Amino acid sequence: MSGIIKVLREIFGSDVLSREDIVEYYAYDAQPIKGEIPLAIVFPRKAEQIRSYLVYASKHKIPTYIRGGGTALSGGPIPLVENAVVVSMYRMNRILDIKLKDMQVRTEPGITIDELNIYLGRYGLLFPIDPGSSAAATIGGAIANNAGGVKAVKYGCMKDGWILSLEVVLPNGEIIETGTNTFKAAAGYNLTGLFIGSEGTLGVITKATLKVVAKPKYRVAVRAYFGDEREAAEFVVKLLRMGLDPTAIEFLDRDTLEAVKRYSGLDYKGNAMILVEFTSSIREDVERRLNLLVEILKEEGAIDITWSKTDEEYQKIWMARKAAAPSLGNLKPKYLILDPTVPISKIPELVDICRKIANKYGLIIATFGHAGDGNLHPNVLYDPLDEEEFERALKAAKEISLETIKLGGTVSGEHGVGLEKIETFKKEAGREKLDLMWKIKRLFDPNGILNPGKLFPREYWEEIWGDRLSI
Amino acid sequence: MSGIIKVLREIFGSDVLSREDIVEYYAYDAQPIKGEIPLAIVFPRKAEQIRSYLVYASKHKIPTYIRGGGTALSGGPIPLVENAVVVSMYRMNRILDIKLKDMQVRTEPGITIDELNIYLGRYGLLFPIDPGSSAAATIGGAIANNAGGVKAVKYGCMKDGWILSLEVVLPNGEIIETGTNTFKAAAGYNLTGLFIGSEGTLGVITKATLKVVAKPKYRVAVRAYFGDEREAAEFVVKLLRMGLDPTAIEFLDRDTLEAVKRYSGLDYKGNAMILVEFTSSIREDVERRLNLLVEILKEEGAIDITWSKTDEEYQKIWMARKAAAPSLGNLKPKYLILDPTVPISKIPELVDICRKIANKYGLIIATFGHAGDGNLHPNVLYDPLDEEEFERALKAAKEISLETIKLGGTVSGEHGVGLEKIETFKKEAGREKLDLMWKIKRLFDPNGILNPGKLFPREYWEEIWGDRLSI
Repeated sequence: MSGIIKVLREIFGSDVLSREDIVEYYAYDAQPIKGEIPLAIVFPRKAEQIRSYLVYASKHKIPTYIRGGGTALSGGPIPLVENAVVVSMYRMNRILDIKLKDMQVRTEPGITIDELNIYLGRYGLLFPIDPGSSAAATIGGAIANNAGGVKAVKYGCMKDGWILSLEVVLPNGEIIETGTNTFKAAAGYNLTGLFIGSEGTLGVITKATLKVVAKPKYRVAVRAYFGDEREAAEFVVKLLRMGLDPTAIEFLDRDTLEAVKRYSGLDYKGNAMILVEFTSSIREDVERRLNLLVEILKEEGAIDITWSKTDEEYQKIWMARKAAAPSLGNLKPKYLILDPTVPISKIPELVDICRKIANKYGLIIATFGHAGDGNLHPNVLYDPLDEEEFERALKAAKEISLETIKLGGTVSGEHGVGLEKIETFKKEAGREKLDLMWKIKRLFDPNGILNPGKLFPREYWEEIWGDRLSI
Repeated sequence: MSGIIKVLREIFGSDVLSREDIVEYYAYDAQPIKGEIPLAIVFPRKAEQIRSYLVYASKHKIPTYIRGGGTALSGGPIPLVENAVVVSMYRMNRILDIKLKDMQVRTEPGITIDELNIYLGRYGLLFPIDPGSSAAATIGGAIANNAGGVKAVKYGCMKDGWILSLEVVLPNGEIIETGTNTFKAAAGYNLTGLFIGSEGTLGVITKATLKVVAKPKYRVAVRAYFGDEREAAEFVVKLLRMGLDPTAIEFLDRDTLEAVKRYSGLDYKGNAMILVEFTSSIREDVERRLNLLVEILKEEGAIDITWSKTDEEYQKIWMARKAAAPSLGNLKPKYLILDPTVPISKIPELVDICRKIANKYGLIIATFGHAGDGNLHPNVLYDPLDEEEFERALKAAKEISLETIKLGGTVSGEHGVGLEKIETFKKEAGREKLDLMWKIKRLFDPNGILNPGKLFPREYWEEIWGDRLSI
């Protein structure tokens, strides 16, 4: 074991942490399940170091977990094998190159999305994939999980054309460049797309070239309440058919609104809130859309419709949504946050199902999220000191995922399978598809050293790790 | 050999063609190189038949070529091994399911893009990926080649979020469903993305679920000429930074304009044409963008700026672009059509390079295309009766591809590697990446029966096909 540390020090110099009291942090991400405390954390500064490490790790079968900002909500970066090495991309956080005339920027993976956008903002540019955790989430982690976020109604997710090329270190030590730095490309297999959403199981992303857009100069946020959750959800479906090109369509249910009220004092009406944002480089675009939206909201029975005339008002309208996750602690100390995603017409049904499951299990399930993409975040609240309640919460969470599959949806729209959703993902994908994915995994990582225990059910990992897996 | 025909008749009934005089057509696609005349063409009507066939073909190592509309421009569907079977998807052309409230449609692969859009138009919907060959190109072929087309400035390509899920028959007979029918998905590897652009080498697509959009009600086409080709190309780069959200930005050089003039009588001024389209569900959106664009065009020295006020005028403006390919025959009988794609700031350089290579080889190279994506179509004209000129044309085409790679671009933006660009793609990708792609190919298709001779250089295919390859 100390042999490993010696080798790590040879490769990473002083950028190695190994004292237990420091590394416990790395047994967690942003969800409540704790993994194994790793043997060491390394902080590479360049791809060459990762290459050397992976060759060594492949040879000696060292379980390896890649970590970005640690904001993952499905257990993606937490170690599930003892004596693992965590590779933190924290120090590879430089912007390498900005090509204004190409509408592209090349970065290392450890930069946070907010940092990147502050930088791009100086040039009037924007990287529009905007997960809720953008202050801490890194570009690399967002790519590995195919992040989406609030603006996905307009811009889609990471895989939808925003990542032009990647530099990736493969477990055999090869460093490859996927794709080309062009908007269109049809030469060869889409390796870039294969790494996006691969959850750190295929290789280590060390550089990324991103497509950026002109930052819209104008924006308006519109807030409206509905008497009934289902009515609000049905409004979202209608709105999408109209071609108004909204940037965001968010939904908050009554429990979420109540939590926000207790947390921040923001009052509410009715039982559900809809938040719509329009953005454009042309002022009149947002005004015209605003007017049309308000008309439709009135027709559809929305109450207390308001919209932002100043930047301050814009921030205030968004505050209810942004405070949603932090404020849930006012209802219960902890929560499981899910990301079921359904065809958009099924949003009203998914909202109903969450409500019914909450009642069935005697739990609070606060639901909010990206209704415009069919992606909701039901939050199953529990008290960690009440073991029986935690058990019920886990059951309820699983039932929501299973009902989502029945609706033709996916158990994960933007958080990834990680550890939390392995069982339900197994059901969603089925044996043949999982086998095929596993073959791809073994092709890239024959020794199975990258992120062992994740994405695939235990029976797959046992081939390699046997009883060493702590799941 | 007659044994094969017997089996094909057992599987496909009367949907088998095997007489040489009929099948010669299937030795071609829309580019000039002729492949081998196949042994038989089969026209499956359901995935089950393809499953039975592929199991048989894998067992007996039968070279198999999948064919959509036959509009491919890189030799993708033409047989390169004698006694091959061509699987034409022509009769699997039904629309299976339209989900208006989900903004989705599920189709078989053999439907043409125009047919699909006529159908969707009745519901006010649009599938926005629009290759030039949309009247004959099929959805399946467009997916297999990651088609782009004129509206990609706004909507991107096939891989950019438009294909939600695929039903694919693998060479081992498994029928898998990739992805889920949701806009967001982050559960497992992006198999859908891997099949998009795989050029019929990994499996046979038998169903596809597509995301559709509200069909814009308003549109305007703007045409302007520039005195200088490079000036026109530089204007495109400036326009993209402005956030006006154009749907299309097309470029035509002087040779193309001259060909169009001889073909259709449409006159022109200057030496290059720019065509910009705006679309929206809101009338004022296109008007405002039009006004801004005209202002900028004037500032940048464009001449004879005009735009459509009626649908007739809209068609007339587009005619110059749509007539471009058919009209080249007025300059020379044949042409090699390329699709080099570069970072957008490099468009002016690419235009210059094409002009210089034309001069160097004493050829006409007419260049037009999707400048807004960095994707141009240089057409290297030649007379097929002049062998020496054809040789020069091939050399010039290769040189354009090589120069594109030097500019940081790709040899194929939307046509695929097929047969024509194998050598230049080899240079673009490099050995390590090609090896990795080949491993993926062998994982899906261990016997290498799908599209032998394509995408990968000869040395890869020789492992399987030895001297049977006619390349």
